[in-house]
Amino acid sequence: MYTVFAGGVGASRFLQGLCQAVDPEGVTVISNTGDDVEMFGLHVSPDTDIVIYALADAINPETGWGLRGDTFAVVDQLQKFGYERWFNLGDRDLAMAIHRTRLLREGMPMHEVVRGLVKAWGLTCTVLPMSNDPVRTMIAGPGGEIAFQEYMVRLRTEVDVRSIRFDGIERAKPGPGVVEAIGDAEAVFIAPSNPFVSIEPILAVPGVRDALANTQATRVAVSPIIAGQVVKGPAAKMMTSLGYEPSALGVARIYRGLVDVFVLDVQDRELAPAVEALGMKTLVTDTMMTSIERKRELAGDILSTIRAGL
Amino acid sequence: MYTVFAGGVGASRFLQGLCQAVDPEGVTVISNTGDDVEMFGLHVSPDTDIVIYALADAINPETGWGLRGDTFAVVDQLQKFGYERWFNLGDRDLAMAIHRTRLLREGMPMHEVVRGLVKAWGLTCTVLPMSNDPVRTMIAGPGGEIAFQEYMVRLRTEVDVRSIRFDGIERAKPGPGVVEAIGDAEAVFIAPSNPFVSIEPILAVPGVRDALANTQATRVAVSPIIAGQVVKGPAAKMMTSLGYEPSALGVARIYRGLVDVFVLDVQDRELAPAVEALGMKTLVTDTMMTSIERKRELAGDILSTIRAGL
Repeated sequence: MYTVFAGGVGASRFLQGLCQAVDPEGVTVISNTGDDVEMFGLHVSPDTDIVIYALADAINPETGWGLRGDTFAVVDQLQKFGYERWFNLGDRDLAMAIHRTRLLREGMPMHEVVRGLVKAWGLTCTVLPMSNDPVRTMIAGPGGEIAFQEYMVRLRTEVDVRSIRFDGIERAKPGPGVVEAIGDAEAVFIAPSNPFVSIEPILAVPGVRDALANTQATRVAVSPIIAGQVVKGPAAKMMTSLGYEPSALGVARIYRGLVDVFVLDVQDRELAPAVEALGMKTLVTDTMMTSIERKRELAGDILSTIRAGL
Repeated sequence: MYTVFAGGVGASRFLQGLCQAVDPEGVTVISNTGDDVEMFGLHVSPDTDIVIYALADAINPETGWGLRGDTFAVVDQLQKFGYERWFNLGDRDLAMAIHRTRLLREGMPMHEVVRGLVKAWGLTCTVLPMSNDPVRTMIAGPGGEIAFQEYMVRLRTEVDVRSIRFDGIERAKPGPGVVEAIGDAEAVFIAPSNPFVSIEPILAVPGVRDALANTQATRVAVSPIIAGQVVKGPAAKMMTSLGYEPSALGVARIYRGLVDVFVLDVQDRELAPAVEALGMKTLVTDTMMTSIERKRELAGDILSTIRAGL
């Protein structure tokens, strides 16, 4: 049984490989809901949906989010009613939001909603929202605090991030099954996602960080930073503006004490000794997931390392 | 100032003519909301939207409802989540429902929602929902009671209608402006809509029937039945199953006491004496609204009759 802390694009690529390397029935995804957003009165869960679409082989490969071949008739029309177009939700993607919103309004808890969506997409893995309670990642910049999707999509990350806050986190409880999935796993993976806005919201749900600190599972993090750059998203930029070194080593420092094995790209092999000095083992391999073969091989490399007892 | 009691398709055609014959700024539509329906968790107002789309010259001319050239990506996708496809809402039509639902959930009263929609579509007439309170037209048949859209769309009117009930009508108040629009008008028109499920719900809102009975306006009804048949919809079939004569005379009997002038098609000219015996004047003209020219002429014929003092 494998459990994966997951954000959006990077996590979905890692999961595509893992679900080919092992039986997906043994994979549990803990999904970040901190970047959920209400758009047009509909509840949109970008990270959860990216993971579902990717595992269903329906993701738009050009963007890394949204559905392949989707159309945009609804958002086109909504502009007529004064909505801004910055959140470009496709029609079929929007159907997902409509369905989710209806179920939530009828009182179904988020984990049951997601369970139904995962099944509707024909997946056999488990996807657990980090919490059924609303948590909203807020980005503080020079102009004040904004919601994550505004920062990410509307302002295209062109903000000097000064701090990050998870609104509602104090009252959030881990989603049903989350703590168990961490405690009972053979291995827990921290996907190559943004440490601050994808992984940290999950860790910040009261009880989750302790569960990860105390599990008997082998804990493996894959660096989202390769050669000082991020494959997708603002992680490197955020590290700099928040005072971290924008490197795999900087990421390793963030996860210190929570991770047994840190996976570095071959381009960062010279960082391995410094990472090991933090008390982690390292696995140096090709982490650029440019093909499904390479995704599967990366998962295989990691699983071999775990099985070899390092 | 002209006020029109309006259902869907027939009313929208009549209104297209009226709004060409007179300045639309002087036209107030009282719209039936009894056939509003929640689909996919969204609030859909079929009659109101048909009127808006028709007046904006955006209606699908083949169906008489929905938007010309609309696509169906969202409802296609929703089937994946187990929804039935009987309510075939187009993508751009659905944008209207998404916007309306958001505003209603935020607490905006229906008449303000509709005012904004009318403006967004560039219309200068006024459209007033009959009530801001929820009223739902329920159809009782041999198999029990069902909501109107189920009868109309899912079962394609293949039900022997035994009775009709307007759920919530006792607690409904006329929408803001409705009573005034009836009392202050120069003429009030009952559009060629279904008397039972389009016009009666409006009349049944407490206070509306009295307002129509007591107004100084000239009250004109246009028969939706021509030569014993209805142009669109189940009105003739309903008349029979509810024990009325399925003819223009049968419709005139329903409106007895509420109408000063009854407009009959030339094909029904032999019914004029019987209608006049009910205490109404008659106008016999071509009421088949097969072209925009004929729609405008019909409105012109009626206005001339009113101005001539009958």
